Amino acid sequence: MKVLVTYNMFRDGYSELISKYDVTFPAEGKESFTYEEVLEVIHEYDVLQSMYNFPVTAELLDKGVNLKIVSNYAAGFENIDVDYATKKGIVITNTPDPVTEPTADMAMGLMLSVMRRIADCDRRLRTKDLEWGLLNNLGYSLWGKTLGIYGMGRIGQALARRAKAAGMKVVYNNRRPLDPKIESLYDARFVSFEELIKTSDVISLNAPNTPDTYHIINKETIKLMKPTASIINTARGPLIDESALAEALRNREIYGAGLDVFEGGHKVSEELLDLDNVVLTPHTGTQTYDVRNEMAAFASQNIINFFEGGKICRVN
Amino acid sequence: MKVLVTYNMFRDGYSELISKYDVTFPAEGKESFTYEEVLEVIHEYDVLQSMYNFPVTAELLDKGVNLKIVSNYAAGFENIDVDYATKKGIVITNTPDPVTEPTADMAMGLMLSVMRRIADCDRRLRTKDLEWGLLNNLGYSLWGKTLGIYGMGRIGQALARRAKAAGMKVVYNNRRPLDPKIESLYDARFVSFEELIKTSDVISLNAPNTPDTYHIINKETIKLMKPTASIINTARGPLIDESALAEALRNREIYGAGLDVFEGGHKVSEELLDLDNVVLTPHTGTQTYDVRNEMAAFASQNIINFFEGGKICRVN
Repeated sequence: MKVLVTYNMFRDGYSELISKYDVTFPAEGKESFTYEEVLEVIHEYDVLQSMYNFPVTAELLDKGVNLKIVSNYAAGFENIDVDYATKKGIVITNTPDPVTEPTADMAMGLMLSVMRRIADCDRRLRTKDLEWGLLNNLGYSLWGKTLGIYGMGRIGQALARRAKAAGMKVVYNNRRPLDPKIESLYDARFVSFEELIKTSDVISLNAPNTPDTYHIINKETIKLMKPTASIINTARGPLIDESALAEALRNREIYGAGLDVFEGGHKVSEELLDLDNVVLTPHTGTQTYDVRNEMAAFASQNIINFFEGGKICRVN
Repeated sequence: MKVLVTYNMFRDGYSELISKYDVTFPAEGKESFTYEEVLEVIHEYDVLQSMYNFPVTAELLDKGVNLKIVSNYAAGFENIDVDYATKKGIVITNTPDPVTEPTADMAMGLMLSVMRRIADCDRRLRTKDLEWGLLNNLGYSLWGKTLGIYGMGRIGQALARRAKAAGMKVVYNNRRPLDPKIESLYDARFVSFEELIKTSDVISLNAPNTPDTYHIINKETIKLMKPTASIINTARGPLIDESALAEALRNREIYGAGLDVFEGGHKVSEELLDLDNVVLTPHTGTQTYDVRNEMAAFASQNIINFFEGGKICRVN
């Protein structure tokens, strides 16, 4: 079998795949194949292992006359024309498992950094713009506070587990309530979105980007929040009206925000960069050496099991 | 009863004390009474409610001819001549309970900020010194990693609870092993200090400052650490030879550090301020609105229960 990997990832996670099949990576020193390069050679390959931002179009699928499976290196698959692949009988797989716990860690890390002013203090210590003292740099404790999780899937639940261990009460809103057995693991309570936004001390967004979730945090919903509350977003940028949030933070209408994703994609707006009550990270929710290797191993396993039998994580 | 409070703290936590006794705070706009001011008036008071950094000397205790109890607003009591107070029959109390969970949160927050590069990325986004991309800004996942806790008291155990929820393995070193029932709550394993330092991916210091713990992290013990390991210190500055740590961080001999306490007290050394693989906070381990009020309420309760009966947290 011939496998084309579009990105020059570390090889650690690919060792089994490389031992079994004929695997092509971009040449050393080259980060990624371009779309045009893949288009030209895809007819020779049985398998495409695409990165999350590599466009797998109908055109490309048509050129891939030998393609049997596209194994995407991502939990999402917005980069792939899944319907067209389904029509052509090409299997699409993804790698949701490795991203769950690291993303929950990122949400927890941002929450602690916002509530305890970690990044803010670190920055001001370095610019010598900080006063020490008993009543300076005060943040909020987590213990006894209410965390409202919007989107209680795998990542939301992994965050709930961490929050419970830190003594927080967990409420959540989801398309439907969870099984009471799962709720009881986290002492989590299903509430309406309105109750969640009004009663939470921290709101964490863990829902996908859909027309229903678009700008769920906006000027009106921010007005319902407690003045001491914070928002954490490790999900997708468009869930928040970023300009409305920046205005509320600037006017100290809420306490803070921790954002790993942005409306502008790989671009943080200048109005956010100017604020000291927001913690900003460059979509590093799954950016660890461990996850990179685990996702490569997971994407490889989807390919190996497709041919040899065993569980695969298919999306079509 | 007449109570003197040395610091102008928010009143929320003092409401019960104020309702029962005659309580004197510094005048509005004044942060704290000076030592000399207290020396002059202490003979009029039955109770001194001292802040953690207010020196309660033998001289002051001698002047306090009506003093029955000194209720210290802190978990520590290095500011008080406890032996002399004991000789004079003056009760000393402290406030350990409210600091446990917030300090564990701080350790967890620093660990996440170091391992996931949160403060570092936030800083570099603002100075436009950051590249986005799949292999940039990589940190380490917590899941499956080993956390070595040095000092497994209340704070160490509260941290272990959080770490277990994040999928970490917990090992610890302590003067003596814990009851196996307590160990099993966190799946924690007692190890020698040498094993802890050699096998941990993150080392958290949660021990008091004693001659035994002085510079427990030094040039030699740092050499035993994994090159991917990090050190978190929310305990006391003197546990680390700061200059040896800064050198190891500068030479990338270890991955990172998160420090809330420093050898220089309220002063961070310039060599640490220059490094990007360390997260620095200004001793804000218990710096929250909640803790400030809870400690005031706890210090008040020690006073009320001393006179009216009930549990007090005495140290002599």
